[in-house]
Amino acid sequence: MARIIALLSDFGTLDPYVGAMKGAILSVCPEATLVDLVHDLPAHDVLAGALALDAAYPTFPPGTVFVAVVDPGVGSARRGLAIRAGEHVFVGPDNGLFTFVLRPHPEARVHAIVNAALGREPRAPVFHGRDVFGPVAAHLVRGLAIEEVGPRVGDAMVLDVPSPRRLEDGGFEAVVVHVDRFGNLTTNLPGRECEGAVIQVWVGSVLVPFVSIYADVPRGAPCALLGSSGRLEVAVREGSAAAVLGAGKGTPVRVTCGPGPAGSLW
Amino acid sequence: MARIIALLSDFGTLDPYVGAMKGAILSVCPEATLVDLVHDLPAHDVLAGALALDAAYPTFPPGTVFVAVVDPGVGSARRGLAIRAGEHVFVGPDNGLFTFVLRPHPEARVHAIVNAALGREPRAPVFHGRDVFGPVAAHLVRGLAIEEVGPRVGDAMVLDVPSPRRLEDGGFEAVVVHVDRFGNLTTNLPGRECEGAVIQVWVGSVLVPFVSIYADVPRGAPCALLGSSGRLEVAVREGSAAAVLGAGKGTPVRVTCGPGPAGSLW
Amino acid sequence: MARIIALLSDFGTLDPYVGAMKGAILSVCPEATLVDLVHDLPAHDVLAGALALDAAYPTFPPGTVFVAVVDPGVGSARRGLAIRAGEHVFVGPDNGLFTFVLRPHPEARVHAIVNAALGREPRAPVFHGRDVFGPVAAHLVRGLAIEEVGPRVGDAMVLDVPSPRRLEDGGFEAVVVHVDRFGNLTTNLPGRECEGAVIQVWVGSVLVPFVSIYADVPRGAPCALLGSSGRLEVAVREGSAAAVLGAGKGTPVRVTCGPGPAGSLW
Repeated sequence: MARIIALLSDFGTLDPYVGAMKGAILSVCPEATLVDLVHDLPAHDVLAGALALDAAYPTFPPGTVFVAVVDPGVGSARRGLAIRAGEHVFVGPDNGLFTFVLRPHPEARVHAIVNAALGREPRAPVFHGRDVFGPVAAHLVRGLAIEEVGPRVGDAMVLDVPSPRRLEDGGFEAVVVHVDRFGNLTTNLPGRECEGAVIQVWVGSVLVPFVSIYADVPRGAPCALLGSSGRLEVAVREGSAAAVLGAGKGTPVRVTCGPGPAGSLW
Repeated sequence: MARIIALLSDFGTLDPYVGAMKGAILSVCPEATLVDLVHDLPAHDVLAGALALDAAYPTFPPGTVFVAVVDPGVGSARRGLAIRAGEHVFVGPDNGLFTFVLRPHPEARVHAIVNAALGREPRAPVFHGRDVFGPVAAHLVRGLAIEEVGPRVGDAMVLDVPSPRRLEDGGFEAVVVHVDRFGNLTTNLPGRECEGAVIQVWVGSVLVPFVSIYADVPRGAPCALLGSSGRLEVAVREGSAAAVLGAGKGTPVRVTCGPGPAGSLW
Repeated sequence: MARIIALLSDFGTLDPYVGAMKGAILSVCPEATLVDLVHDLPAHDVLAGALALDAAYPTFPPGTVFVAVVDPGVGSARRGLAIRAGEHVFVGPDNGLFTFVLRPHPEARVHAIVNAALGREPRAPVFHGRDVFGPVAAHLVRGLAIEEVGPRVGDAMVLDVPSPRRLEDGGFEAVVVHVDRFGNLTTNLPGRECEGAVIQVWVGSVLVPFVSIYADVPRGAPCALLGSSGRLEVAVREGSAAAVLGAGKGTPVRVTCGPGPAGSLW
């Protein structure tokens, strides 16, 4: 059976931190299949990490173990966690990084990592990715029962992520939560909220057409569509919505929903 | 047998798109060996993707399946393709990305991807890398016959890449088609055109010596040589030719060839 | 048995050079497990490569083969080396890249690569990572005896790395040797030099507290601590020490050591 460990961090690609973590994992489980999700997250940005994890983990096969490390509190009293949610396992700091794993999985089993025997020695207080989370994940992918890492806990941290505000007219006041490399703007509005409805999308004072694919608008024109992670997204065809619309993280996006045939594009 | 899938895209390393595509592949073929070719291609630059693929794929073992996704037309009427060329297989959009695979392989078998059962559900119209090309590649590396993806087609798109212009004196007017991270300038002139000949190389009005290795010139000096992908390249030893020569994509490079012993460096 | 090959280079992530090297390795050993240490090292910076290798290789399991390529002299008379040191094997240019492998391993067996049959043909004089070092590593991970690559040599190049200067008062004048993506400053002072001692750390004229973990100081405040690679490090909690302290590679760091209980933080 494949033993897949997927890695997400803010370690970047300029330094050998990801490499050192991989070595520590392979020292416990040399036959592991290591997969990088993303490592160039903004430094210390836990919400960005939580969103990135959410966008990638559902595509992985059952049994995959995820190591997620965006960890500004490394070495402090913040706990380490191992979580079994659905068919996946997650390992990392208890700081909200697993918000979008825990929310849809109220049945998840969350364990605090206290079994020091599973870690790497000597343990650097500034690098738990290498010395704690990586090795624990390697033990779990080899079949260690999650109970062995430590006691079950019920109070894992969940981020207070801004929800889209429902408006009186049936629409939403959403907000941009992520800007990707293409300049696409991801909002906090789940696509299912508007499914089947006629909708209009304003970014600031600019009305952008709601479409199915980028090619539904001319090159360089803005549009809104259902992004690949299931959230409403604002894009510019073969261009950057962030640049064209002067928008970024925190920019409000207003959405009008309603029944009716005309303009029904979803 | 190793089941190698090599990945090339313009998804970048800031977002989890590559990771999501890998998850989708591993869900179909958990034992696949995934190899990254390059993901930081300039966004939407199909020619850059075609050149990068050309520089890397010939080193891979027979049976390797390549997933290449630079796909500004994602979700539109542009087709998806699966191609068997030589001993390799290629999967991606029909937009010219496989130009340098198809040119030297007139015998290549090209199939349009129409078998929806091979993709991931639900299919996002904006992310065929994850929902179509990745899964199709995973099925192919597991042994699916390429005929199963869809009908054979004969009109795959090939880019209209500028060819070097042959001059009356036997030389060439070439052009820079790529600048790499070192500032090396790759031209569109295949090295074999000049083999065994005395040649002179001008970048704009600057004459640069044609040499075998960087160390043939002093540190900081420009030179021209046969690059690792077999094309004529202009470099600066331990420096950036792009910066030193003020050159970039599109800069003309003039080359004089001729027989004779003196100065024969190739 | 897992056949792990770990890769370090200054090839960057913008070009397919790493991908081409991986293809060449897999063509010799398709079942190899390839692991990236870091590829975004500053171009041509051999010391940066040596430090990065040092920070990562000790975490890897016995038998791992490392390919390290920061190689401004590629194609010149500089030799290629294969080194067995401790339980690991290293392959790359003889230019000082293995300084921190060779120093603590005087018993290391160093061999010059001369066996042309192990390389890839045709061999580009500008890309030994793909055509020499990668394939040689692949043969070694498959079990080739290191003697087969070429004769043992005794004069491998070692960099003249600045050592911290011992001061009369028992302290040290150290220097920043690396700035990581977080803006953390790594010095050349091994942590063991000060273990158990009261110490004070000055960066220029700024006194920074010596602590165990980042969280021992307020957000935005500088601190000094034992970094994950065992060297004294200067950081700013959830910020950039490079920016806050105006420091960089070469900035002097003065350290006072001494016995005594008060302020003993290590």
